[in-house]
Amino acid sequence: MGTDVLVLNGGSSSGKSGIVRCLQAVLADPWLAIGVDTLVDALPPSMQATDAGIGFGADGSVNIGPMFRKVETAWMQGVAATARAGAHVIVDDVFLGGAASQQRWRSALDGLQVLWVGVRCDSAVAAGREIARGNRARGMAASQATVVHQGVVYDVEVDTTNSEALDCALTIAVRLGGPVRS
Amino acid sequence: MGTDVLVLNGGSSSGKSGIVRCLQAVLADPWLAIGVDTLVDALPPSMQATDAGIGFGADGSVNIGPMFRKVETAWMQGVAATARAGAHVIVDDVFLGGAASQQRWRSALDGLQVLWVGVRCDSAVAAGREIARGNRARGMAASQATVVHQGVVYDVEVDTTNSEALDCALTIAVRLGGPVRS
Amino acid sequence: MGTDVLVLNGGSSSGKSGIVRCLQAVLADPWLAIGVDTLVDALPPSMQATDAGIGFGADGSVNIGPMFRKVETAWMQGVAATARAGAHVIVDDVFLGGAASQQRWRSALDGLQVLWVGVRCDSAVAAGREIARGNRARGMAASQATVVHQGVVYDVEVDTTNSEALDCALTIAVRLGGPVRS
Amino acid sequence: MGTDVLVLNGGSSSGKSGIVRCLQAVLADPWLAIGVDTLVDALPPSMQATDAGIGFGADGSVNIGPMFRKVETAWMQGVAATARAGAHVIVDDVFLGGAASQQRWRSALDGLQVLWVGVRCDSAVAAGREIARGNRARGMAASQATVVHQGVVYDVEVDTTNSEALDCALTIAVRLGGPVRS
Repeated sequence: MGTDVLVLNGGSSSGKSGIVRCLQAVLADPWLAIGVDTLVDALPPSMQATDAGIGFGADGSVNIGPMFRKVETAWMQGVAATARAGAHVIVDDVFLGGAASQQRWRSALDGLQVLWVGVRCDSAVAAGREIARGNRARGMAASQATVVHQGVVYDVEVDTTNSEALDCALTIAVRLGGPVRS
Repeated sequence: MGTDVLVLNGGSSSGKSGIVRCLQAVLADPWLAIGVDTLVDALPPSMQATDAGIGFGADGSVNIGPMFRKVETAWMQGVAATARAGAHVIVDDVFLGGAASQQRWRSALDGLQVLWVGVRCDSAVAAGREIARGNRARGMAASQATVVHQGVVYDVEVDTTNSEALDCALTIAVRLGGPVRS
Repeated sequence: MGTDVLVLNGGSSSGKSGIVRCLQAVLADPWLAIGVDTLVDALPPSMQATDAGIGFGADGSVNIGPMFRKVETAWMQGVAATARAGAHVIVDDVFLGGAASQQRWRSALDGLQVLWVGVRCDSAVAAGREIARGNRARGMAASQATVVHQGVVYDVEVDTTNSEALDCALTIAVRLGGPVRS
Repeated sequence: MGTDVLVLNGGSSSGKSGIVRCLQAVLADPWLAIGVDTLVDALPPSMQATDAGIGFGADGSVNIGPMFRKVETAWMQGVAATARAGAHVIVDDVFLGGAASQQRWRSALDGLQVLWVGVRCDSAVAAGREIARGNRARGMAASQATVVHQGVVYDVEVDTTNSEALDCALTIAVRLGGPVRS
C-alpha cells in the first residue's frame, strides 16, 4: 500500500524547501507541497506579530501563541483531509516542540500512510546558509538545528551538510518505493 | 449562527486579493486567506505547464487538465475540513466554470455556513490594472471579467471599478454581521 | 529635444509603481524603471535596519542615516550616467525632504532633460490602499501623503485618488510628447 | 589603494547571489549589490520577451537582442559612475560572451580598481541546484557552467561545488584585504 503523506522535519535553513522541489521533480505522481510557511502566509498580518499569534524575534526566536496553535490544529485537519481525498501531500514543517509536534501530526494524520523524514544539517553550516539567504534576523538556524529533532522518530533521515538537495530527494524517493521520472 | 467560510469569486485583476487583506484587517476574529493561487503554487512546477495540469497561455487563457481537476477536488475537501475544525476561512477563487464551479464548492462545503461574495470590475478597468501590475501575459482580465459570474448566485456583491478595496471589505463585513476592529 | 529622465515623486501607496509599469507599456521607446526601492534592496541587510543606514519604524516612519545618504548620492550619479549614456530612465522616488530632495536630483541630473511628475493621492485613500497591500507597518502612506510634495515644482501632476494608473500614465505620456504604442 | 568594484562572474545556479549576500555581511564597509537581474527587472515587460530585448527559452537558452545590448551598455556606465562617486559596488553577472563580456566591463570600469572573481560550479551539481530552486525552465545551469568562463581572466576563483557560500565569501574578502566584521 502506498504512502499518502511525506512529512519533512528540519530546522530553518536546513534545506527542506530545496528537497521538496526536487521530490516534486523526481516523483512520477504529482505531489502537493504544503508547508508551515503556507499557513503563516495565510494568517492576518496582525497575527504574524502578536503574542496571541506567531512572533519572530530579532534573535531568530519564534514564539507561538494560543490563537496560532488553534488555527494550526485546524490547518492540520485540512492537510489530512486533502490527503484522504486522494492527493499526495509533502508537508514541510519545523517541529519546535520535537516529539510533541510529531504527536500532533500523528493524531491529525490518523489512518493515513505517513513517511517521516528528518532533514538534518550541521548547525554552523545552516547558520552560514542563513547569511547567504540574506535573512536580517539571524540565529534561527543555529537555535533550531538540534532541538527540532529531539525525541522524533523517522523512517528515513538525510543530512544536507555534505549532500545536495537532489541526492537527498533521491534517497527519500527510493525509500518511498514509487515510480520515479527518468 | 456565524459564517464559517467566505467565498470571493471574481476575474483576474478584479481586486480580490486587496479585499481579502482588508477583510483580514477589519474583522476582529482571525480569518485564514486561502486562494486558488495557493493551490497552483503547491503543484509541481511541471504540472503548472502541461495539458494534464494547468496551463497559462500567452493570451491570458487558462487551460485546466484532468490531473489539476483531481487535485483541486482534494484541496477543496481540505479547505472544508479546516473550516469544520474551527478556523474561519476566506477563499479567493476564479470560477472559470461559472455556476458549475460554485456547485463544486457547494458540495465540498456541505454543512458549513457560507457567504458567497461576487467581486466585479469593469472589463476595461481590469485590463488597465493588469497592465499596471506588470503582467507579461495580457488578456486574462478581460476574458474573465464576465464569464466567471455566469449563473453564480451571491449573498453580496461588490464592484471595485469605482470603490476602494477597504470600502468593499467593509460592505462585506457588515453583511457578515460579526465584530469589526475599531 | 526629447526628455531623458522622468522623475515621479509621491508618498508610499500613492500608486507610483503602477504608473511606472503603465508608462513602460504605453511608451514606444524602452524606458528603464529605477526606484529608490532598487537602492534599498541593493544595500547590505544590516544597513537596512541601523541608524547609520535606513530604518523603517513600526509606525511607518523612515529614518535616513549618514551612510545611506552617502550611498544614495553615489547612486543618483549612477542613474544620471545611465541616462547620459543614452538610456531613457524613469525614476520613482519619495522626496522625504521635499524641495531639498528635488534639489539633490537637479544637481545629479545636471545637463539632462528632466520631466518632473507629482503623483498625489488623498491621504485616507492611500492609507486604505496600504491596508489592501497587506503592509504590517501602517502609517507610512498617511505620514508621507502631503510632506513629500512641499516646495516641489512639477511639469505635470496626476492624482490617483479617482484616476486609474493607466490614465495617469497616458496623461504623462501626452506631456512627454513622444511616440506611444497603439 | 583599495578596490572599488568586485565583479563576480558565473553561470546560472552557480551560487553567486549567496556569495554576494555573505560578502555584504562579512565586509565592514557597506557594498552595494547590483546584478544583471536588476537590469532585467528594470526593463519594460515587453522587452523581456522579444528578439530585440532579452528572451529566455524553455530549454534555458538566453537570447540577447540589439536593444538589450544598447541599454546594458548604458547601465554599465551607470554602475561605473556609482563607483566613481564613492560607493563600493559588487557586480553579479553572467558573461554569456566570455572574454568579450569581460572586455565590455573593462571599458566601462576604466580607471577604477576592479577585483575579478570567477564563481565556478560543477555542471551536474549546478543542474541539480536548478531543480532545487524550482525553475520551470531547465538547462540554463548546464549550458552556462563552462562557456561563461572561456577566456576570462580572474584575480581570484572560488568553486561552490564543495564549498559553502560563506567560505567562498571569506576567501574573496581575504584577497580584497579590507576590514572584515567580527
